[in-house]
Amino acid sequence: MNRTDTLWHETFRVRSYEVEPNGRASIQSLCRYFEEVASNHARALGFSMEQLAEHNLTWVLNRLRVEIDDFPRWRDTVRVTTWPSGHDGLYARREYLLHDEDGSERARATSGWVMIDLARRRPTRLPAFIQEMHFPRQDRAVDDDFRRLRPPTGRFDRHRTFHVRYSDLDLNGHVNNVHYVEWAVETLEPAFLASHRMTSLEVDFRAETYYDARVRAETAPDDSTEVGFWHRLLREPDGAVVAVARTRWLPLAGG
Amino acid sequence: MNRTDTLWHETFRVRSYEVEPNGRASIQSLCRYFEEVASNHARALGFSMEQLAEHNLTWVLNRLRVEIDDFPRWRDTVRVTTWPSGHDGLYARREYLLHDEDGSERARATSGWVMIDLARRRPTRLPAFIQEMHFPRQDRAVDDDFRRLRPPTGRFDRHRTFHVRYSDLDLNGHVNNVHYVEWAVETLEPAFLASHRMTSLEVDFRAETYYDARVRAETAPDDSTEVGFWHRLLREPDGAVVAVARTRWLPLAGG
Repeated sequence: MNRTDTLWHETFRVRSYEVEPNGRASIQSLCRYFEEVASNHARALGFSMEQLAEHNLTWVLNRLRVEIDDFPRWRDTVRVTTWPSGHDGLYARREYLLHDEDGSERARATSGWVMIDLARRRPTRLPAFIQEMHFPRQDRAVDDDFRRLRPPTGRFDRHRTFHVRYSDLDLNGHVNNVHYVEWAVETLEPAFLASHRMTSLEVDFRAETYYDARVRAETAPDDSTEVGFWHRLLREPDGAVVAVARTRWLPLAGG
Repeated sequence: MNRTDTLWHETFRVRSYEVEPNGRASIQSLCRYFEEVASNHARALGFSMEQLAEHNLTWVLNRLRVEIDDFPRWRDTVRVTTWPSGHDGLYARREYLLHDEDGSERARATSGWVMIDLARRRPTRLPAFIQEMHFPRQDRAVDDDFRRLRPPTGRFDRHRTFHVRYSDLDLNGHVNNVHYVEWAVETLEPAFLASHRMTSLEVDFRAETYYDARVRAETAPDDSTEVGFWHRLLREPDGAVVAVARTRWLPLAGG
């Protein structure tokens, strides 16, 4: 099978429940579009979650970075393009571009995936049949070396705790990654969210969470940028770090 | 404008994040498809939320009843058909049918909407321009007279409290109705949800909830059916009833 030179495209029409009170698609909605195209393309390539389960393996999203110039709005149609951009034995990388109907690029993203051995519940090297695949497109949508995110050790003074809902789970029965992004953002005030838009998101996913757990999302200002934050998501009560993120924002025009 | 004789159709391809751990689309996903087609059709007819806002009016979903023969799964394509089926001065009714790719009917629903005067935040009679519209299709997808749901007065012994998230809000800034459905269902055990499918849902939406509120969802067995429940959603701390629901279920084959 050598279909790895193909780009994969899907279109999404933004639905009413995918936008925030400010009228723009939420960052979660964009992440879900990326998740959906990744799944569908992986399946076409022969290494979807279902296909890997036969080898007792699964994909886990480990890193995600999204850069957003402009969020689409309700009823906008967007086109998402994705391609695997190779691997280094540990990470398999996948890229994403989001265009509007006029063909203008509005957002781009890159992601790093690790392979999990389902029996040992631990990361494992990519299996031979994937290592041997030829991925001719090595170009990145966002140039990121996925260096470990190191949040400051000081005080995280904004926080909010989330009690995991059944609807937060995905097909694997654990909390879908997109919810960590949602919860990181939700530590910020609604008035801030209504008057700002995210321009950049970096997430380092580190552990799983299950039904009925509590996750404490903590936020601190990121002094290296004009409007930016560091986010830490901790599982309660054991305090394990489930995700670390960094976000950047700009005021909305007129907002 | 006399476009009220047209049916409205949209297709939805079920996405990975719209299914539950049991592989079936969640009841919330079906409700969201209905919400989306209702919004888009209302807009085509000239009485969308945006268009009504110019008259200082808005639609609020007051009643919903869904009957489900079979839930679609990830990557299934479903076609949703909707039409307004008239009004009685208080309620405007809207019907829905959901078909699979083979044209088999899988689910049907009916809904009752009330008009809210945005200045007074109270229900008001349908405005003349809607009363005067001709709705030639009076047939119902589900025959329901929207009689007030009266849950028993006894003990509701299952309960779970939900802290309203920013992502639960919709364009109006209040909790989207679909979340009340989600929370009613979430009072049931994950093991029950994994081994049963809902066959019927009736909801009576009574009040609004806002960001940061807590909603207590309570459930009691409905002794009039084999596997059925009454659900009550109460706003904390004032105890106002925000929704009342009734659900029916069947064991999944082999589950």
